Amino acid sequence: MKRIYLDHAATTPLDERVLREMKPFFSEKYGNASSLHSFGREAREAIERARETVASAINAEPEEIVFNSGGTEGDNTAVHGIAYPNRKKGRHIVTTKIEHHAVERACEFLEKDGFEVTYLEVDREGFIDLPKLEAATGKETILVSVMHANNEIGTIEPIAEIGKICREREIYFHTDAVQSVGKEKIDIKAMNIDLLSASGHKFYGPKGVGFLYVRKGTKLRPLMHGGGHEKGLRSGTENVVGIVGLAKALEIAEAEREKEAARKRKLAKGLVKQALEIENSWMNGPEIGKKRLSNNVNLGFDFVEGESMVLMLDDKGIACSTGSACSTKDLRPSHVLLAIGLKPWQAHGSLRLTMGRDTKEKDIRQVIESVNEIVGKLREISPMYKGGN
Amino acid sequence: MKRIYLDHAATTPLDERVLREMKPFFSEKYGNASSLHSFGREAREAIERARETVASAINAEPEEIVFNSGGTEGDNTAVHGIAYPNRKKGRHIVTTKIEHHAVERACEFLEKDGFEVTYLEVDREGFIDLPKLEAATGKETILVSVMHANNEIGTIEPIAEIGKICREREIYFHTDAVQSVGKEKIDIKAMNIDLLSASGHKFYGPKGVGFLYVRKGTKLRPLMHGGGHEKGLRSGTENVVGIVGLAKALEIAEAEREKEAARKRKLAKGLVKQALEIENSWMNGPEIGKKRLSNNVNLGFDFVEGESMVLMLDDKGIACSTGSACSTKDLRPSHVLLAIGLKPWQAHGSLRLTMGRDTKEKDIRQVIESVNEIVGKLREISPMYKGGN
Repeated sequence: MKRIYLDHAATTPLDERVLREMKPFFSEKYGNASSLHSFGREAREAIERARETVASAINAEPEEIVFNSGGTEGDNTAVHGIAYPNRKKGRHIVTTKIEHHAVERACEFLEKDGFEVTYLEVDREGFIDLPKLEAATGKETILVSVMHANNEIGTIEPIAEIGKICREREIYFHTDAVQSVGKEKIDIKAMNIDLLSASGHKFYGPKGVGFLYVRKGTKLRPLMHGGGHEKGLRSGTENVVGIVGLAKALEIAEAEREKEAARKRKLAKGLVKQALEIENSWMNGPEIGKKRLSNNVNLGFDFVEGESMVLMLDDKGIACSTGSACSTKDLRPSHVLLAIGLKPWQAHGSLRLTMGRDTKEKDIRQVIESVNEIVGKLREISPMYKGGN
Repeated sequence: MKRIYLDHAATTPLDERVLREMKPFFSEKYGNASSLHSFGREAREAIERARETVASAINAEPEEIVFNSGGTEGDNTAVHGIAYPNRKKGRHIVTTKIEHHAVERACEFLEKDGFEVTYLEVDREGFIDLPKLEAATGKETILVSVMHANNEIGTIEPIAEIGKICREREIYFHTDAVQSVGKEKIDIKAMNIDLLSASGHKFYGPKGVGFLYVRKGTKLRPLMHGGGHEKGLRSGTENVVGIVGLAKALEIAEAEREKEAARKRKLAKGLVKQALEIENSWMNGPEIGKKRLSNNVNLGFDFVEGESMVLMLDDKGIACSTGSACSTKDLRPSHVLLAIGLKPWQAHGSLRLTMGRDTKEKDIRQVIESVNEIVGKLREISPMYKGGN
């Protein structure tokens, strides 16, 4: 059975071109980048080349890129790393109700440690309200953390506008760009971003490697202490092969970004149009083609349980998700879907389909057919559906 | 020019057998282990198999293994993760003067945050003194962190005895086993270890992945907050391919451990014997064949600068190190060599040669020849040497 993978927001396969770039660094150019000898130097050079590639993709300076193990580490480093050394200035942080758990729980931790956190509401499409954000900031506010694109419903937040507000008020601005890097144009200078976290495996790079952009002059405390790697901001032997892979993956993603986005938007439009022909169905998140990740579709079906849908689709070789895959064994409904106003039972009925480079028109047709059939079957056995009709 | 790599304490190449095991997980079995569908399940199964392999290698239970990004993360998680949630019991930590920077600097951080840290002295061979360790612990002591094997001079500390002392006194015992895992027999039950950190790339596994053993019931605070992966102890999408590689590498290392150790000890003996024939030379660390890592040789040469030696050896295709490669651009003499009583100028003249699976008798001969020649050359241009003779 040919499998159709529509869970690219959870993770992506490693691009074969990326793997090719990585290959020499497994068993030939395997040096520790801190070593003085030629093995060390070739590792160091590869890392610095990768740093330039990454910096140029987001209009940063190479020395502002800190390589790490991924998005969760980046988010934690940003949130805790700003909070503690700047707490003399203030103990207030502004974030949203739809952040990834890595930001959300890092903030919750701070609340228990004497910080005050404002969690901004979002509208039905997942957008924050800029005047409310402005109103929430005060003299005590040291950090605003708002994600670039939401991992569940694809909403792209107005980060340039947020950046402007924060810069004017001298508040650090962090954005979790794990879902948007390689998919959306990012210009950290134009957008006035101080910190930005990203993860390689979301854009066809390797798992276990990511980066944090840290604007020059930012007062940041590292999460890990040790050998002082990455200008003291991230100790630990550099994952050379992972860093090389991440940079290559980003280079490819940037080169193909606009073409791929247009292609996926078209697929998404077709998918949503057909899905909404199923009765008692709806779409979560902004309209396709508007401020939404091009590869993200999130649907809702009344009287149907998302997990059952995912498992039945899996039986037909189709991989997708309900809520987000980032939170293990969590039976609570998605905090994102609740934040956009869904009832818990509606949130449990969501289906996230996130497309990738290999997703074809015919895959979408097959998915729609299967979804149609499965929703029908599940509703047949749902007492609520029968009661409701 | 054939290069001879004698810096296996800094990092090792990825074993080809390990890469083979990893291959399917790059672009075929690439799922996010938290996903419900078949891609996710095959990733989850691979991780759980890897966890069993790792657990069995150190006589732990699978659920006591927490996968992470490497040794520095493990050390920081252990030291800070024990310190904070247990500070009501006490604020005292005991460690040594020869720890890796990841433990040392995590401890220094705690000192600035209201904790008291005792740094135990070591003898000329790098061993701690058990009665002094006992005397250093008190009612306020919540953690003892002593490395298993030293990364610079190979000293193997009496961790079973330390474990026994700590267990009797109900003090958590952490050991940084980054250098010893796969090289020395480890039995966390027999050794009464509560936390143990390890890193894949030190035993022919991939960079950017490691594990922390955490004994059941240990009160540990995670370093990163987020999706609650690894039983809440290490959030972040699991590096599936890295974890698979680490486990395979450890399996191979364990299978070949005794044979390899015997082979390397023989090479080390030959190397040291010949090196000590050079006048004004000495060996750092314990006698070869005694409580010392089998692949570690650390030599000292009066009137010679270690960095010059490393660079000149590199010109001849020989990769080795002075001090440790784990600390970038640090011009201070090695804290380990100072702790065993060397003068700063002696510490600057050290040469670390750490052998690997590919190291052959003839490599050792070539190294000795080159060292001999280079030491001679460097002494010729050293005013101190001329003055001294």
